Amino acid sequence: MSRVDVNCDLGESFGTYKKGNDSEILDYVTSANIACGFHAGDPSVMRKTVGLALEKEVKIGAHPGLPDLIGFGRRNMQLSSEEAYDLVVYQIGALYGFLKAEGAEMQHVKPHGALYNMAAADPSLADAIARAVYKVNPELVLFGLSGSELINAGENIGLATASEVFSDRTYQPDGTLTSRSQPEALITNDEKAVHQVIRMVKEKKVATLGGEEISIQADTICIHGDGIRALSFAKKIRGAFEQANIEAKSVR
Amino acid sequence: MSRVDVNCDLGESFGTYKKGNDSEILDYVTSANIACGFHAGDPSVMRKTVGLALEKEVKIGAHPGLPDLIGFGRRNMQLSSEEAYDLVVYQIGALYGFLKAEGAEMQHVKPHGALYNMAAADPSLADAIARAVYKVNPELVLFGLSGSELINAGENIGLATASEVFSDRTYQPDGTLTSRSQPEALITNDEKAVHQVIRMVKEKKVATLGGEEISIQADTICIHGDGIRALSFAKKIRGAFEQANIEAKSVR
Amino acid sequence: MSRVDVNCDLGESFGTYKKGNDSEILDYVTSANIACGFHAGDPSVMRKTVGLALEKEVKIGAHPGLPDLIGFGRRNMQLSSEEAYDLVVYQIGALYGFLKAEGAEMQHVKPHGALYNMAAADPSLADAIARAVYKVNPELVLFGLSGSELINAGENIGLATASEVFSDRTYQPDGTLTSRSQPEALITNDEKAVHQVIRMVKEKKVATLGGEEISIQADTICIHGDGIRALSFAKKIRGAFEQANIEAKSVR
Amino acid sequence: MSRVDVNCDLGESFGTYKKGNDSEILDYVTSANIACGFHAGDPSVMRKTVGLALEKEVKIGAHPGLPDLIGFGRRNMQLSSEEAYDLVVYQIGALYGFLKAEGAEMQHVKPHGALYNMAAADPSLADAIARAVYKVNPELVLFGLSGSELINAGENIGLATASEVFSDRTYQPDGTLTSRSQPEALITNDEKAVHQVIRMVKEKKVATLGGEEISIQADTICIHGDGIRALSFAKKIRGAFEQANIEAKSVR
Repeated sequence: MSRVDVNCDLGESFGTYKKGNDSEILDYVTSANIACGFHAGDPSVMRKTVGLALEKEVKIGAHPGLPDLIGFGRRNMQLSSEEAYDLVVYQIGALYGFLKAEGAEMQHVKPHGALYNMAAADPSLADAIARAVYKVNPELVLFGLSGSELINAGENIGLATASEVFSDRTYQPDGTLTSRSQPEALITNDEKAVHQVIRMVKEKKVATLGGEEISIQADTICIHGDGIRALSFAKKIRGAFEQANIEAKSVR
Repeated sequence: MSRVDVNCDLGESFGTYKKGNDSEILDYVTSANIACGFHAGDPSVMRKTVGLALEKEVKIGAHPGLPDLIGFGRRNMQLSSEEAYDLVVYQIGALYGFLKAEGAEMQHVKPHGALYNMAAADPSLADAIARAVYKVNPELVLFGLSGSELINAGENIGLATASEVFSDRTYQPDGTLTSRSQPEALITNDEKAVHQVIRMVKEKKVATLGGEEISIQADTICIHGDGIRALSFAKKIRGAFEQANIEAKSVR
Repeated sequence: MSRVDVNCDLGESFGTYKKGNDSEILDYVTSANIACGFHAGDPSVMRKTVGLALEKEVKIGAHPGLPDLIGFGRRNMQLSSEEAYDLVVYQIGALYGFLKAEGAEMQHVKPHGALYNMAAADPSLADAIARAVYKVNPELVLFGLSGSELINAGENIGLATASEVFSDRTYQPDGTLTSRSQPEALITNDEKAVHQVIRMVKEKKVATLGGEEISIQADTICIHGDGIRALSFAKKIRGAFEQANIEAKSVR
Repeated sequence: MSRVDVNCDLGESFGTYKKGNDSEILDYVTSANIACGFHAGDPSVMRKTVGLALEKEVKIGAHPGLPDLIGFGRRNMQLSSEEAYDLVVYQIGALYGFLKAEGAEMQHVKPHGALYNMAAADPSLADAIARAVYKVNPELVLFGLSGSELINAGENIGLATASEVFSDRTYQPDGTLTSRSQPEALITNDEKAVHQVIRMVKEKKVATLGGEEISIQADTICIHGDGIRALSFAKKIRGAFEQANIEAKSVR
């Protein structure tokens, strides 16, 4: 039987602004990446989201992002290694506060948005993030793009890592995601998306845009918690997993 | 031999803005209250300040404040108990991140500015803060104004507390500080300030503005880290402690 | 024929967070209060909202709020008169930028949330706000709660004012709104709400919670742009105005 | 007689954090670039700085920056053209508020830090900024790096521009500044700095690092308002101007 973690970004509401269907989507995921107040989330949202995840027995991870609320942490920003280290330590710590208050454990850390993407390609940024995670707690699992510098950095420092794959993105021959600025970057057909995931998990292979087959490590897949189709796709993929004899299970 | 803790607010720089003489003042204090990014401080300042305090072997505490950088956390703000709980948990957690990264322990929590003052008088706010501290770690020591609701709330919930007194403020017959809006709120004469502290520590008494004597508990005194006279006063008070046979010692 | 302005708070989205049905509600209002980035809104939201209002030929006003994004400007905050003056000037100016860029005029200023409520009761805060508006442009119309200190302050300084009334709130014998913490603060029945507005506009009278009748000035009524019922209520009240021979017309 | 404007970044304090010697440096400059609250400054600092500049009869310009207080607007950030346009309009507008309140005029706009540097090299960002300035007021003068894309964009759209040169930076053969990451990027010798400026103003020439001579347009020179040497250098350069028969005069 194959096995994969299903993760989702949660706790992305802010103040009176609501985002996502956290309570509903938690029924379909095994790991929750909780925003820590820099790109989204606030202290009250974090407490509530931790409570929801514990209630649904979903494993909890920190989802640190760039200090850019207006841009939702999606705009690249020049950061020194030290600044990156510091803002990751800060945000992991902030979430730890809420976990300690509930006597709960943190499973993982997954950087958000532009921080995730920059760290996939930039070894020194990747190293700064991996060090931040390791120093706060070497038992944490580092989530990063499969085949990325972030996964390399995590392994180098001695962290357990989880290689993340995407159901709704197409892949390039070098294993990177097709840039969103390109046509065919997104897989909008649910059946194709499900099929891609099943192959990645069971056969460790993915077809690139050009049709070539490449190897890929799929420890965790990311599903979306926001948008109209998020819930129905979540159901669909979990149903497909059952049929394909894939167990959805958190990394720890 | 009497004994008292000497605490100081530190890590109040922000970005490129410098505040205080942290490195120098650390030679004279036994407990450092480190700002956590809401009223002052930022992740990089926090890391550096933690490093300095560890280097000087000064005990470390979180100094959570209101989310008001422009007002430096000194403007009262309406907060629900839940909001107060949440922002204290968040900020303690954020500092924990940096302490865990250095393998260091947190000794205490002291709310900042308007949060401190409001919690001195408001039992439900005081309770929310005490609960936040207790839930994150029941071993933490809660610092609050001597005789305040915050000290009561800490004791009620089962936290160790440290009653704080001020060298440079005058007292009212009910044990509260004379409001800063009143004349004679501040003691500007260093000798008078030193004398007041020595009496509070050794005799557990303080003379009120009206001349009356009242009892006061003095577990920790607050000295300032900012301003021209901060360092010279710090030296002066530590010299006076030596002469008066008072040991300056952290609460843990 | 009677006449009244219909205003609505708009431009309250922020970054990727959407709030309100600005485009739809603009069909039913004559004055738009546009958030200026402190309690809600951001530069891009402001540009788009100004564009929408111009397209629908709705008069535009600034809607300055407290610097409290997480609390949506609804939490009271201690402000000096100077701080209040400064943050109102800043926010009016910021909106002016977008209006000047489009060659458009600003009609009015209406403080938001806690700033509005505090200014209704506090003469010195009210004066600071009125001065800010007057100094930036003495031709601006100041919107405030009918019978409030803000309206007084505006009149005293020489501004045109518009006394605002609420369809969905009950009134006290002294003309203030029943506090939201009281039962029966809100009128949830649409027919009652419409009836109250019609009376206020046509007869300048309103029945208090106790049943007493008091006089009230109704230059502008506030309708909500957020929530499920916002649009249907907007239609209903505009329909009722037509039947009651009330013209909905901006104050300028 | 030659003539040049002398500009300085001012109003960079924030809340309780003080930066720069605004009052003193204003005696030596003819144009003040006032921070608008995104990278530095706040509404109260803006009001006070406008007041100081008016008192000293120094021309006033807006100094819009990236939304990055912690990084003081010096960290590059990915911005769409629309986002750049919007944040420049917003910040110019905010400063307009304080100028209108004092019945004063705005002379110019000079982007700050990373926004200035990115706009020097990126034509589409430069165009967005120039459009923002032009749309708010086509009479404003756009300040940009001499020979930069920002100056081009300003000229293309029909704005008056002022080409800025630096006394303390070395130049490359293509007219760009030597990157700060390179050795010899900075001219630390005051005499050399003064000499470079005098040549740029009087002969429209500058020696590059390699020794080559290139042409340069010098409408305005930037002096620093922060740091220990800022004031003494300001005096020195104004003295040298007098001797060299150069008139320091604002661009309008």
